[in-house]
Amino acid sequence: MPELHPILLCGGSGTRLWPLSRKSFPKQFVPLTGETTLFQAAAARMAGTPGVAAPVVVTNSDFRFIVTEQLAHAGIDPGAVLIEPSPRNTAPAILAAALQLLASDPGALMLVMPTDHEIPDREAFRAAVAAGMPQAQAGRIVTFGIRPDRPETGYGWLELSALPESGRAQPLVRFVEKPCAERAAAMLAEGRYLWNAGIFLMSAAALKAAFEAHAPELLAPVAEAVREARADLGFLRLAAGPWEKARDISVDFAVMERADNLDVVPFDGAWSDLGDWNAVWRAAEVQGLATHGAVTTMDCSGSLIWSETEAMHVMGIGLSDTVVVAMPDAVLVADRSRTQEVKEAVAALKQRGARQAEIFPRDHRPWGWFETLALGDRFQVKRIVVHPGAALSLQSHVHRAEHWVVVSGTARVTIDGEARLLTENQSVYVPLGAVHRMENPGRVPVVLIEIQTGSYLGEDDIIRYEDIYARGQGAKG
Amino acid sequence: MPELHPILLCGGSGTRLWPLSRKSFPKQFVPLTGETTLFQAAAARMAGTPGVAAPVVVTNSDFRFIVTEQLAHAGIDPGAVLIEPSPRNTAPAILAAALQLLASDPGALMLVMPTDHEIPDREAFRAAVAAGMPQAQAGRIVTFGIRPDRPETGYGWLELSALPESGRAQPLVRFVEKPCAERAAAMLAEGRYLWNAGIFLMSAAALKAAFEAHAPELLAPVAEAVREARADLGFLRLAAGPWEKARDISVDFAVMERADNLDVVPFDGAWSDLGDWNAVWRAAEVQGLATHGAVTTMDCSGSLIWSETEAMHVMGIGLSDTVVVAMPDAVLVADRSRTQEVKEAVAALKQRGARQAEIFPRDHRPWGWFETLALGDRFQVKRIVVHPGAALSLQSHVHRAEHWVVVSGTARVTIDGEARLLTENQSVYVPLGAVHRMENPGRVPVVLIEIQTGSYLGEDDIIRYEDIYARGQGAKG
Repeated sequence: MPELHPILLCGGSGTRLWPLSRKSFPKQFVPLTGETTLFQAAAARMAGTPGVAAPVVVTNSDFRFIVTEQLAHAGIDPGAVLIEPSPRNTAPAILAAALQLLASDPGALMLVMPTDHEIPDREAFRAAVAAGMPQAQAGRIVTFGIRPDRPETGYGWLELSALPESGRAQPLVRFVEKPCAERAAAMLAEGRYLWNAGIFLMSAAALKAAFEAHAPELLAPVAEAVREARADLGFLRLAAGPWEKARDISVDFAVMERADNLDVVPFDGAWSDLGDWNAVWRAAEVQGLATHGAVTTMDCSGSLIWSETEAMHVMGIGLSDTVVVAMPDAVLVADRSRTQEVKEAVAALKQRGARQAEIFPRDHRPWGWFETLALGDRFQVKRIVVHPGAALSLQSHVHRAEHWVVVSGTARVTIDGEARLLTENQSVYVPLGAVHRMENPGRVPVVLIEIQTGSYLGEDDIIRYEDIYARGQGAKG
Repeated sequence: MPELHPILLCGGSGTRLWPLSRKSFPKQFVPLTGETTLFQAAAARMAGTPGVAAPVVVTNSDFRFIVTEQLAHAGIDPGAVLIEPSPRNTAPAILAAALQLLASDPGALMLVMPTDHEIPDREAFRAAVAAGMPQAQAGRIVTFGIRPDRPETGYGWLELSALPESGRAQPLVRFVEKPCAERAAAMLAEGRYLWNAGIFLMSAAALKAAFEAHAPELLAPVAEAVREARADLGFLRLAAGPWEKARDISVDFAVMERADNLDVVPFDGAWSDLGDWNAVWRAAEVQGLATHGAVTTMDCSGSLIWSETEAMHVMGIGLSDTVVVAMPDAVLVADRSRTQEVKEAVAALKQRGARQAEIFPRDHRPWGWFETLALGDRFQVKRIVVHPGAALSLQSHVHRAEHWVVVSGTARVTIDGEARLLTENQSVYVPLGAVHRMENPGRVPVVLIEIQTGSYLGEDDIIRYEDIYARGQGAKG
């Protein structure tokens, strides 16, 4: 029996859930609906099922350390992490995963999943996948259809030839693009239509054949990008030169809408694409008021009120059909019927040059993360967390000096060649120009407060001498 | 010609403008409508006018250093700052000011003003005061009436015997308590009614006589509290023992509504009590959208959207008649028609034990201020600003050690008897138990970052050895 390889697509960076989801830290990596993130839930969705291999992740360079950190926290070892040199939509990403699998396992089956959707019932999902396995093994492409409960115009739909039977694969008649309200209502009434969840199950060989038949121009550049991929610290970096030549196109447009060997397995479990704040409110399964975190309300209804940190209390009075999302650096307040416009509003914010448009307050790096606590005239205060065993690059700065105070854990600090251990309550001064490195030789995270002083405090004031993560001069630190 | 003494009442602590106004830092001290605070604007309202003395401030112990700091910034020297030992509403406060004035100036005139209202046109106000001076000198009590432009049910009204003439004092027929909507509409239509601004002009002797006639029971305790007042670092602390015996009552109830020697000067200038967020929206003089600070909006109307710090961007989409006020530790989102309920909501928040209900993020002390930047497990990071010439008490802590990093200015630090100067980029460690003091001997503020570590980080872990501000053990620092 061939192995099934989950393919986790997580290179996307939607802004419709701003301010919680940003270009630098998109929604799949945010704990939106519980303790774990949507990406972690997707990675765990098939884990431990007999015949299922370790997942293959396709992401971009900016997210690679978030991916490894979140997989490590979830206790999941990836089969491979493919890095796209630039965004090319889903068709090249899925094709790259298929070709990579075929190189070592010609009979490989693949289950392609977006990682920013919510599917709370894991067992129901596994049952649906099991129902599609015979078709996939027979060379068919299986897609999964969600039973609609409203005339949704924001999704694509799947047309069947007959009323869907739960857990039984049926041939797909055709894809229906996001419909108008009238058409959506008609499809809902007729019953032969399901929502397209964007999840695909098939053999890697069948997928390759579909590309050969319907999007042959993608094969050469993607194959070359895979063949010339470079291993880098556990990541597989697809070759940029050929990759750039691949068309930017979705797998639906490139092959699925043209292929004639598609089946649909109806899925009756709960599902949400969490595509905007209204969908998040709906997924909270409250008819009325959904709150998250430190929130007090009086007489609010039809609303989602979200406080991202305990240190920020949100008070709602007399609100109806309103979304409030509060973070330390940004607050969204929107009419719930207009949350689709958040994307446009974030574009306007970007135009104004506001860093909140794209940058998350907590900045993830290969060695851990940091956040700015205060930014003043000629000074900046950061909280820095260094993972056990991790190390910042050996570096120096032209424009700033730094004070480090360790508040938790033990750090090894090297300044101009002299190393010392620094533990809770100890501090050290890094003069302007000094060549320095910070490492965590211990088994618990190092938490330290950094106070920078100087005339210029940008992240790009950095000269790197050595870096175990192979980053360049002036690149983020 | 007798001198006119402005009396600034600023002991109040309303919560209707939460989260910007809190018990620990109420709205009169907040720059609500411009660069200066409402208190500073009130203090400057008569300053520099011939025949007008330095203002007398009546406040409480918690606000005394905010008062002196804000007056210093505005370049105003107070005639006296009276400290009420406990809140007793306006009647005892105004009587105390009158008795204090009479002790040195039997012919004193007084102009009693709330300090949390907005009167943007200073010249128009001075003209109205000038119009009332002859009456005040003749022993009358002059009140000021605002020409109404809507049937407001939130204010008290003043009934005149005839249609008001601008700038001409006329006898008051009677006070009208906050009316119902119908009565307010009738008064607005009739034209003989003005809003009561709560501003009074009279001789101190006439006021004392009014108390003697209508509220004689207040005279003995207040007179004794003034007689036994204690000078303390430029403040005059009324004696607590007798003060506690004074009734808690407003000057309107105690004497104004019973006196028969009242005149009204109509005031045509703009005026707002900024009594709730709806009033702030109205005072912004926009028909539609009022924003403050880092705010981006799409399609909002009838709304007030307020960001208190540049580091926090607020985005509003499709809002109508909504108030949004965002601060680093609290966010209010309310239907604009229900902003009167903020008070009630804050009471609910207090019940839940949320510190944001009463405590302002920036904590003002006699020597400057501080704010918490981060609070973690066993550590806290603060930004501390020390005014030139100021000094923290000589102190020690039982449960915490402290690191200080100076990022601006020059501090003199004494630790266990050893003093040193610390300037930008320098740091010092204060071990647990060490007796230490921080002073600013320079001419510019000292800005420093303090990192506390320890098992207990409360403000009350403090042992004081010497304090130029005469505060006690365990009291705030």
